[in-house]
Amino acid sequence: MAHHRSTLPAVLAPVITPFDAKGAPDAQRLARQCRWLLSHHVGLAIFGTNSEANSMSVTERIQTLQALIDTGLPADQMMPGSGACAVTDAITLTRAAVEAGCAGTLTLPPFYYKDVSDDGLFAYFATIIEAIAHPKLQVYLYNIPPVAKVGFSIALIERLIKAYPKTVVGMKDSSGDWAYTESVMQAFNSTGFRMYAGAESFLMRTLRAGGVGCISATANVNPGTIAGLAANWQQPNADQQQSELDRVRSVFQRRPMIAAMKAAVAHFSGDPQWAAIRPPLVALSPAERDSLLADLDSIGFSISGL
Amino acid sequence: MAHHRSTLPAVLAPVITPFDAKGAPDAQRLARQCRWLLSHHVGLAIFGTNSEANSMSVTERIQTLQALIDTGLPADQMMPGSGACAVTDAITLTRAAVEAGCAGTLTLPPFYYKDVSDDGLFAYFATIIEAIAHPKLQVYLYNIPPVAKVGFSIALIERLIKAYPKTVVGMKDSSGDWAYTESVMQAFNSTGFRMYAGAESFLMRTLRAGGVGCISATANVNPGTIAGLAANWQQPNADQQQSELDRVRSVFQRRPMIAAMKAAVAHFSGDPQWAAIRPPLVALSPAERDSLLADLDSIGFSISGL
Repeated sequence: MAHHRSTLPAVLAPVITPFDAKGAPDAQRLARQCRWLLSHHVGLAIFGTNSEANSMSVTERIQTLQALIDTGLPADQMMPGSGACAVTDAITLTRAAVEAGCAGTLTLPPFYYKDVSDDGLFAYFATIIEAIAHPKLQVYLYNIPPVAKVGFSIALIERLIKAYPKTVVGMKDSSGDWAYTESVMQAFNSTGFRMYAGAESFLMRTLRAGGVGCISATANVNPGTIAGLAANWQQPNADQQQSELDRVRSVFQRRPMIAAMKAAVAHFSGDPQWAAIRPPLVALSPAERDSLLADLDSIGFSISGL
Repeated sequence: MAHHRSTLPAVLAPVITPFDAKGAPDAQRLARQCRWLLSHHVGLAIFGTNSEANSMSVTERIQTLQALIDTGLPADQMMPGSGACAVTDAITLTRAAVEAGCAGTLTLPPFYYKDVSDDGLFAYFATIIEAIAHPKLQVYLYNIPPVAKVGFSIALIERLIKAYPKTVVGMKDSSGDWAYTESVMQAFNSTGFRMYAGAESFLMRTLRAGGVGCISATANVNPGTIAGLAANWQQPNADQQQSELDRVRSVFQRRPMIAAMKAAVAHFSGDPQWAAIRPPLVALSPAERDSLLADLDSIGFSISGL
């Protein structure tokens, strides 16, 4: 089957968000990071979980998106997070993304109320899509039950695809549950549904099962190697490359991941302001940072070109 | 011990929010409901969980608050919810409430990220309180782990009270865990901490243990009786009154509670628009509504004066 048409690459990073000395999102630092990611053929899933998007106001997110576009970054490589608890906020964020020309939006289910019905979740997405009513809107469902505590049943996905076949085009699955990821692909690959795994640990399995690629936190720090595997996944050494990716990921994953990635970028870029993080997340302590850098050194990992 | 000084009554309702035919918050309908609640000596915890506050944008919440104030409703009877995922949103909401003269704010912990540290939660509240820096700010911690999935440890409450003894003045505890509620009162009653139970089911126990009262969903539909018990809790028939309250609550609690309360208000006011609800919540079906009304009739319950 063919996927829905898209300009987006196989690997995207939920780009970490720099904050300036006053605690505000720093669009210029972020734009430089985005250019570096693009140079490694990694697309821009700005405003994801690892971007601390839900720690930013709607206005901060829209102004930051506009500033990135104004620096000349290509919207066709962007899949901004447009999720929120309030449907009115999700409409505002989604509209801003589509009007900026973004290739897709990555949309969380509303995540305050728990145990909500599929009827209610369908109505939420229908309200957004019909309020925007834009032929170029491409919505990716963002499934991350470990954090959102609200997910997407197969029945709900089916209903959304049937109602909005040109708009509901894919998913980022951060469930960590391969059986679920596989079942979604088996059910909907034939509709052109584009599945992105939520971590590069699932990259080979996702590609082999007809998925598109991955949107992974670690693409913030290891972009070239992850994008390389996505390009070469049918080569004989692909499984070995997957093992190498997993080794790097494990160093970050056993720590508070967002803080650890920011600490690594701060270190390798020589720009300590990158370590700034918004509450309720906290930056690594100096001892935690030293431990991270020692672990990275022990596997011969460093980041260059930042 | 004496509680912190406050103009707020013993019972408040997380006032349900009416939406107009276009789906927007309807401040005039809401103002009438607020006046009716005040006539029963029930205060206004607008923008709570049962108000669908997190289904409204920051702008919608601030404009609605301002419209309520403009109709002459007393801010000294108000404890608006000012919680959000983004600290910048929580600052905006909290500032609007204190500048409007509200007697308190009911502030959720940031609820997107899970398993966050006490250090991070402390930093979140410290950031809000220091950004506002207003001598009249009175923050009530909103503990509702069944929904927010993030709560307040005793150590965190202690740290907040010590750092901001005049500002962090109380809690609404919707944990449903009486052992927790009791432990918070035992630890902090001596500081003047004001404990509101999260449901009238705990009203007698809370008052007997030195708490202030309750902020309860069902106060939206049964305000006079709940406020009556709070006033007469030391009378001989109080435990019997508690049983009667529990009986009414159980009819609502075994249904989707917000939708059921809206259906009841729509019915007894003769104003069907009250049933409107925002996704991801869904209104009761006609059959569900009829079942609710039959159950209410069977216990002889009705709402008058709406």
